Amino acid sequence: MHAYNFKNIGITTKPDAPEITSVLCRLGRFLAQKGYRIFLTEHSQKYASGFDYTPCPLESLGKQCHVVIVVGGDGTFLATARAVVNDQIPLIGVNLGRLGFLVDISPDELATHLDLILQGHYQKESRSLLNAQVIRDNAIIHQQTALNEVVIHRWVTPSMIEIITSINGTYFNTQRSDGLIVATPTGSTAYSLSAGGPIIQPSLNALLLVPLNPHTLSNRPVVIDDDCEIEIRFSQTKQIQALVTCDHLEIPDVHISDIIKIKKEAKQLIILHPENHDFFRILRDKLNWSSGYHI
Amino acid sequence: MHAYNFKNIGITTKPDAPEITSVLCRLGRFLAQKGYRIFLTEHSQKYASGFDYTPCPLESLGKQCHVVIVVGGDGTFLATARAVVNDQIPLIGVNLGRLGFLVDISPDELATHLDLILQGHYQKESRSLLNAQVIRDNAIIHQQTALNEVVIHRWVTPSMIEIITSINGTYFNTQRSDGLIVATPTGSTAYSLSAGGPIIQPSLNALLLVPLNPHTLSNRPVVIDDDCEIEIRFSQTKQIQALVTCDHLEIPDVHISDIIKIKKEAKQLIILHPENHDFFRILRDKLNWSSGYHI
Amino acid sequence: MHAYNFKNIGITTKPDAPEITSVLCRLGRFLAQKGYRIFLTEHSQKYASGFDYTPCPLESLGKQCHVVIVVGGDGTFLATARAVVNDQIPLIGVNLGRLGFLVDISPDELATHLDLILQGHYQKESRSLLNAQVIRDNAIIHQQTALNEVVIHRWVTPSMIEIITSINGTYFNTQRSDGLIVATPTGSTAYSLSAGGPIIQPSLNALLLVPLNPHTLSNRPVVIDDDCEIEIRFSQTKQIQALVTCDHLEIPDVHISDIIKIKKEAKQLIILHPENHDFFRILRDKLNWSSGYHI
Amino acid sequence: MHAYNFKNIGITTKPDAPEITSVLCRLGRFLAQKGYRIFLTEHSQKYASGFDYTPCPLESLGKQCHVVIVVGGDGTFLATARAVVNDQIPLIGVNLGRLGFLVDISPDELATHLDLILQGHYQKESRSLLNAQVIRDNAIIHQQTALNEVVIHRWVTPSMIEIITSINGTYFNTQRSDGLIVATPTGSTAYSLSAGGPIIQPSLNALLLVPLNPHTLSNRPVVIDDDCEIEIRFSQTKQIQALVTCDHLEIPDVHISDIIKIKKEAKQLIILHPENHDFFRILRDKLNWSSGYHI
Repeated sequence: MHAYNFKNIGITTKPDAPEITSVLCRLGRFLAQKGYRIFLTEHSQKYASGFDYTPCPLESLGKQCHVVIVVGGDGTFLATARAVVNDQIPLIGVNLGRLGFLVDISPDELATHLDLILQGHYQKESRSLLNAQVIRDNAIIHQQTALNEVVIHRWVTPSMIEIITSINGTYFNTQRSDGLIVATPTGSTAYSLSAGGPIIQPSLNALLLVPLNPHTLSNRPVVIDDDCEIEIRFSQTKQIQALVTCDHLEIPDVHISDIIKIKKEAKQLIILHPENHDFFRILRDKLNWSSGYHI
Repeated sequence: MHAYNFKNIGITTKPDAPEITSVLCRLGRFLAQKGYRIFLTEHSQKYASGFDYTPCPLESLGKQCHVVIVVGGDGTFLATARAVVNDQIPLIGVNLGRLGFLVDISPDELATHLDLILQGHYQKESRSLLNAQVIRDNAIIHQQTALNEVVIHRWVTPSMIEIITSINGTYFNTQRSDGLIVATPTGSTAYSLSAGGPIIQPSLNALLLVPLNPHTLSNRPVVIDDDCEIEIRFSQTKQIQALVTCDHLEIPDVHISDIIKIKKEAKQLIILHPENHDFFRILRDKLNWSSGYHI
Repeated sequence: MHAYNFKNIGITTKPDAPEITSVLCRLGRFLAQKGYRIFLTEHSQKYASGFDYTPCPLESLGKQCHVVIVVGGDGTFLATARAVVNDQIPLIGVNLGRLGFLVDISPDELATHLDLILQGHYQKESRSLLNAQVIRDNAIIHQQTALNEVVIHRWVTPSMIEIITSINGTYFNTQRSDGLIVATPTGSTAYSLSAGGPIIQPSLNALLLVPLNPHTLSNRPVVIDDDCEIEIRFSQTKQIQALVTCDHLEIPDVHISDIIKIKKEAKQLIILHPENHDFFRILRDKLNWSSGYHI
Repeated sequence: MHAYNFKNIGITTKPDAPEITSVLCRLGRFLAQKGYRIFLTEHSQKYASGFDYTPCPLESLGKQCHVVIVVGGDGTFLATARAVVNDQIPLIGVNLGRLGFLVDISPDELATHLDLILQGHYQKESRSLLNAQVIRDNAIIHQQTALNEVVIHRWVTPSMIEIITSINGTYFNTQRSDGLIVATPTGSTAYSLSAGGPIIQPSLNALLLVPLNPHTLSNRPVVIDDDCEIEIRFSQTKQIQALVTCDHLEIPDVHISDIIKIKKEAKQLIILHPENHDFFRILRDKLNWSSGYHI
């Protein structure tokens, strides 16, 4: 429980979002009053007033702080996760009134939940991340981390692409499609869900491969062990281009002769939830399962 | 039955495809022997020998001929259809050994089927086409014809786009997705099928709207009357780009502030089939319905 | 517009539903005050007070009245439709606070909308119905009408059944599955939608065939012309039983050697809507299209 | 590798299937010649000739033998697995010319593959099984083992049922549907695939919950850890009946007030494969991934 001793608390927010002002100020004053030292990312400072803070670039938050609080939506949380993952400090997510899968503390429960978490009463959760490498002439020319998914997508071409996938060195399949999603359990409720993928419990050690509009109708989503290493090549019979994105962050300049390798990152992301955190409740809420009709 | 009197017969083939040589030569000799005058597209001439023909650009075939025979796959058929539709002359499709939805005569049945068709024993079918217009500042800056589908797709952006659709001037919906397919019944067995759309009987007067990986899971394919006019705008809250394609033919330079209007073309495409043509048999064959296991 | 002259108005309601009391009494008083003669179904009388009415069995409403108002959900509307369709009198649907696809007038708009409709300001709509016949030894042993769908379903067997379908006398396919839905456009937003079928515009002259969990993954929903006659037989290699239902109404005692014929009913159901009726708005509302997240 | 010493070999086959005669006799003679002692199930004896065997009931095979060879399809394999699982002896699957997910040795490779396997050159695989209990008044009134899936299905009712699911004692959701599949990774390529579930790698420690035609369109397949215990109750607002099946084997007489508990069996099924066994190859073959068109 009391695994962490929080003195320096980082805060970062959705950029260019005046609507965060009220939550940010309440949060800052609450923490300042409790005696915590606050480090605030630069892009959030214009919305801050009524509390003292040390300005800090997003990339340094992980080095200065014992925990980072993210105020915004799941997108802001994803960007922060990538920035701090190497420092292995935990994240806490605060939404702006609309529950997110990752930002699960609502503004009106802020004081109560935060107080308990900072006293050590939390549910600690580790989430897997993906590492995507673009390999050209046997050298890694680019790599990127993803919390949700790596997507290989046709690009600047109106035709399908042909993707050749191997798993742990064994040939898996060749598919014609608009692309392929490789998602973590965290990402299973994001883009992958729109593409027909299943929901995966966050704690399961699994990766999810979801083809995008595959030509062959039996090319269905596949769930594999997350120790597997995935290697993707392109069939080069046509002049096409492809794009690789990690959580919507684009890897530039992928050639059709490049190899993309995707595997689990060695480090995991640590998230602190309130003790009553319930993934199923968030699922029911986000997917409107309790609403009455077809949805 | 004897609605057509075929004297001048156009032939066009898949371009850059030496594998057509055998079928093309058999076809040409068969027709020459029967006394028909043959017009051959330029890109097909290098594969032709053993029969006389008049060279003819693809665009002029419809003016010179009473019927055009297409040798190749469904893609070759689509390109030919766009080139001759205004001349309202019928097409006959010959495949290269692999049945297509549109090229339904196989090489080994060529002589028998063609002889009967040219004597007037055929099934005549009319297929609807779509007209897509890109409108900027109240002017049509581009328009294109499609036999299969018009696709609006996100472009050079890793994020979903927001598409606002009206049908016959009435607001239909706003969807966040990778794009939207508007397909004819002919197109319902092409890209639309990969995106989760239903199969539509070719003779039904219907259009099909299929969202591409929609964010809202209840955004399902919708089938409407083909007299409807569809108008599509983009929500411009984000800096995105979109692409419009007609049967994989790209409309260049679509702005996010442009309006796309899609409606049925006034003219239909005329296809001549052998008398025993059976759409359901082609469906069973192409979708492997008779094979034993999950497919 | 003024095609109908409404003097005798039938009212029927959801049975055994005390929650209809308030709407029923407001409705009855409103109509009585306007001078209409009210015929009320027997099962609704215990909830009626404050207005005069003539008791009337559901089956006779169509003979006594110029229009029938249904108070309840889409299920009540379906049952009423089957009871009055032969009399060709129009229906008006009033919901209990929750919009339905068929019961589109909400209690709080009751007076306004009804007043206008009864003065002749309405949108008149005709909806197709299906007729299902069970044929044994060349005789029709049972037939039933459906507004939403006819479902052929495996029954008292844990295994899939094999269904052989012909359309207009032409063999369509043989599928192993849990069953088959044949739906009208009206039914496309009911059970068929749960089984993966598309949404069909109510005015389209179409029928929808949706396989239930088919063994062959490419057995997709098919949309055909509603002039088609569908004939279904069972492959009798296994000892199975099947069930035929029409809008959830069960046809008893179907043998595996029986033939099921499904075609459009000659008569259509007439529905009167308020003039501002908008099918797309109901779709957006029922399917939560305007809500923010994945649904 | 040489973990097993095979002297007594059980053989069981698809019942009532004369087509097994040839494979059975070749198999029997091959093993007899090599000096193994053969135990043959009673229902298989009428097809056996040319080799000596000891008759043995299916239930006793696991006690008499060191390994059991199953000749038939995946269904025969499932029935054998349930019969021998408690004895923890390995199974080998031989098909009748058509590859199965479980019966992966083809008749024409029989001698080669068997010889190597019986010499200790095999891939050993453990597959999870499910245990389903029906609980009434706090007592287990029935339980059954499943290798593929447990299905809860509406029964003798034309309406959807309402299923309340808890996972490890935490409320998961309430869904209206035709039922719910709880599948192992092995079962993910069986019925679950027809119902829209993903493919799960056999070695993954996962369970799969797939709703059958759910009313709420966002009720999607969910993959959870296979240590989870699933508890299912029925909402009893309507007079309905439900059925529970384990690998198509029916649990009789389930009441709507019963509780169904599903968890992983303590014991796993052991399968011996040829050393070149490749799950992905079987997937590509069974799902026709290499075939050209939409399937």
